[in-house]
Amino acid sequence: MRSDKSPVMEGNGGAGAGATEWRISRASARGAPLADAGSMSIRAVLGRVFSSVDESGPRPMLMLGSGDPTGCACFRPPPEAEDAIVDALRSGEHNGYSPTVGVLSARRAIAEYLSRDLPYQLSPDDIYLTAGCCQAIDVMISVLAQPGSNILLPKPGFPLYESRTMFSNLEARHFNLIPDRGWEADLESVEALADENTVAMVIVNPSNPCGSVYSHDHLAKIAETARKLGIIIIADEVYDHLAFGNKPFIPMGIFADMVPVITVGSISKRWLVPGWRLGWIAMCDLNCILKEAKVDKSIESYINITNDPATFIQGAVPQIIANTKEDYFMKILNLLRNSADLCYSKIKEARGITCPHKPEGSMFVMAKLDLSCLDGIQDDLDFCCMLAKEESVIVLPGSALGMKDWIRITFAMDIPTLENALERITSFCQRHDKLEA
Amino acid sequence: MRSDKSPVMEGNGGAGAGATEWRISRASARGAPLADAGSMSIRAVLGRVFSSVDESGPRPMLMLGSGDPTGCACFRPPPEAEDAIVDALRSGEHNGYSPTVGVLSARRAIAEYLSRDLPYQLSPDDIYLTAGCCQAIDVMISVLAQPGSNILLPKPGFPLYESRTMFSNLEARHFNLIPDRGWEADLESVEALADENTVAMVIVNPSNPCGSVYSHDHLAKIAETARKLGIIIIADEVYDHLAFGNKPFIPMGIFADMVPVITVGSISKRWLVPGWRLGWIAMCDLNCILKEAKVDKSIESYINITNDPATFIQGAVPQIIANTKEDYFMKILNLLRNSADLCYSKIKEARGITCPHKPEGSMFVMAKLDLSCLDGIQDDLDFCCMLAKEESVIVLPGSALGMKDWIRITFAMDIPTLENALERITSFCQRHDKLEA
Ligand SMILES: Cc1ncc(COP(=O)(O)O)c(C=O)c1O
Ligand SMILES: Cc1ncc(COP(=O)(O)O)c(C=O)c1O
Repeated sequence: MRSDKSPVMEGNGGAGAGATEWRISRASARGAPLADAGSMSIRAVLGRVFSSVDESGPRPMLMLGSGDPTGCACFRPPPEAEDAIVDALRSGEHNGYSPTVGVLSARRAIAEYLSRDLPYQLSPDDIYLTAGCCQAIDVMISVLAQPGSNILLPKPGFPLYESRTMFSNLEARHFNLIPDRGWEADLESVEALADENTVAMVIVNPSNPCGSVYSHDHLAKIAETARKLGIIIIADEVYDHLAFGNKPFIPMGIFADMVPVITVGSISKRWLVPGWRLGWIAMCDLNCILKEAKVDKSIESYINITNDPATFIQGAVPQIIANTKEDYFMKILNLLRNSADLCYSKIKEARGITCPHKPEGSMFVMAKLDLSCLDGIQDDLDFCCMLAKEESVIVLPGSALGMKDWIRITFAMDIPTLENALERITSFCQRHDKLEA
Repeated sequence: MRSDKSPVMEGNGGAGAGATEWRISRASARGAPLADAGSMSIRAVLGRVFSSVDESGPRPMLMLGSGDPTGCACFRPPPEAEDAIVDALRSGEHNGYSPTVGVLSARRAIAEYLSRDLPYQLSPDDIYLTAGCCQAIDVMISVLAQPGSNILLPKPGFPLYESRTMFSNLEARHFNLIPDRGWEADLESVEALADENTVAMVIVNPSNPCGSVYSHDHLAKIAETARKLGIIIIADEVYDHLAFGNKPFIPMGIFADMVPVITVGSISKRWLVPGWRLGWIAMCDLNCILKEAKVDKSIESYINITNDPATFIQGAVPQIIANTKEDYFMKILNLLRNSADLCYSKIKEARGITCPHKPEGSMFVMAKLDLSCLDGIQDDLDFCCMLAKEESVIVLPGSALGMKDWIRITFAMDIPTLENALERITSFCQRHDKLEA
């Protein structure tokens, strides 16, 4: 580097370092489970698909693989939300560390926000602020994990649950979501899987990756099953209100008088700000089951040794919630509805992939590969890598979500780009069609 | 809540919930270690001291307990840093998820920033962005922890190391910092503690809680010891450049040709923005020892399943670093120097507490309680709670840092407030002086 620096070592520095036996070099044990846990992340899998893209290709790369539509101009956050951040920052009152559980005004605002859809009122004390819904998942898995215990996860599911479960030495047991029943949970298999060491079951509604939205009736059945089994529900509602089909979004928390519900969520999706890292845990614990088991204390203890969302972003939450107009949400829902419709109808036309259920919520649809129609394609990963290579289109291999030979398509995108991407997918399938070949 | 909501449950909801045997209620095993890990945090200990304050007292509460001076008007961040955040936010380019390892421009800016003080050039690939230095610590401990392994921690130290170590089932072994030698590390005890299962040693320079700054000579001795033992160094330099005594701040990384150094740091302290949650891990690995042991891959895997700092805050980093003027840093150093001097001289006058070493860096000083002079005070926690109660002054009990019957005083404060607080401490000691009593 700069030559005016005097040499650091007198003598045998570099050489000595080479000769030393470094204990770290023998320490590879940790690497394996960590690598396993980390390699399952969507980012890691997409990275592998991504590396197949032919960078010298003439066409722009189209990303239908992630749950982050913020690259499209039409999916910008509401200006009111940006203003709220600027105001909180400029106030100078939110530069310091935040309290463990989060800034009170933000917890109050979130309690009120969630209570709008509940038949009771959450208190700020029921809310813990987290760095996105991801950290909420991290906290809940870490708090619930115990030697020998297990957790029931949906399949297909969100891979972070698998990674955190693996990292915490909690056993994951999977119940199926049934494509032909609108991706409802197979509650019989839930009953078969649960045992006395089951700590919780997870549901994701609206669903990533299925694009489904659960009816009141199905949610009630889930609640009944959980009560019967004596297990709590972790309700991942990070896509709350992103329901554009016939069924409205209904929070699991309405059944909290029947079963303890821990709702996890964030502003990432509805406000289109996944990079802001602001989420929450809401304890819907009307019968104080969780409090009696000291789950609240464990959450606080764990958050004490993990991270907080940036304080000024916390400080902006009341204004973000108060000032974002209903119009904005309607506009986004319309965009999602149109692109979901387009996606579904185009995939219908393609040979070799089928879409069992029209998306009604979130930003995703699952499509099944019919490999018997597709020439020279081994599996879903192969499909995705070849698609990336030949068409510069990225979709997520279903095996990242526990669904081999399926793919997940993100439709949250402006219509012309989505149309372009779907045409490329269609022509890819055509080119690899066994009948045509 | 709202009466227009139809009742959720038909029939036995609440009652049924009461009757169910909830598995979570039996699941208290996890609570204990988590509670232990969490209760050691500074926030948790200060919370206990805090609750002793007489809220009906006439005088304002003065907080000399935390490492967060942002409550004082004189410790505001540079306006350029705020502008950088606003620009990054308003650009609309940083609303999405960030890459696992962080936004490239920010990694590049931090590599350059750190390299200014190094005899070589770090590359952006050596830098991982984290949600504050806290997450950097979390990542490093989690990555290094293996069954049966141990880590060498300074005593007194920063409690997060203890909590994360405990949480990861890593064994903590403590080497002393010696007050009469300017809080230098007792390297003989380091040698005695290390064995073949030692994964790393941690040094904190400038020191929290000691207020010391290590000389080139002492750092070289630390490096030699680590090389001899074959263990890597985690250099916590979150207080980098906050050195206002005679010794300049020297990064441990200058010895990276001799020993692998993992530097952890953040903008929290130097820019006075602990609430912004932006830190880093820098791998100073000139001989590729860490890379060969795949520590880089493990870090990436772990970050994949944990949290990122907010993307627009990452996006602001290049501008924060480029635009903050030297004047700003000088002004802060002057403030710290003056308040450190005041603190040291006032504590000298007080009976029952002594300060073995004048602070030269960070924001803290350690003071020893002479309980034989102090009437009716059992220990450091007792001292702090009584001081909180009688004088509405908060200082941190040394036992939170592994130093029973010491206290840590934060002097980063405007002079009049600090004067006031120190007077209250002096009069508290006087009132409890055995000779006077
Ligand atoms: C089901 C599910 N849960 C949680 C998350 C994490 O969201 P956040 O950005 O709030 O961390 C996602 C993100 O895609 C998700 O799909
Ligand atoms: C020694 C030490 N390391 C790490 C940290 C964490 O700093 P950050 O705010 O960057 O997470 C602190 C905070 O006080 C500290 O004192």
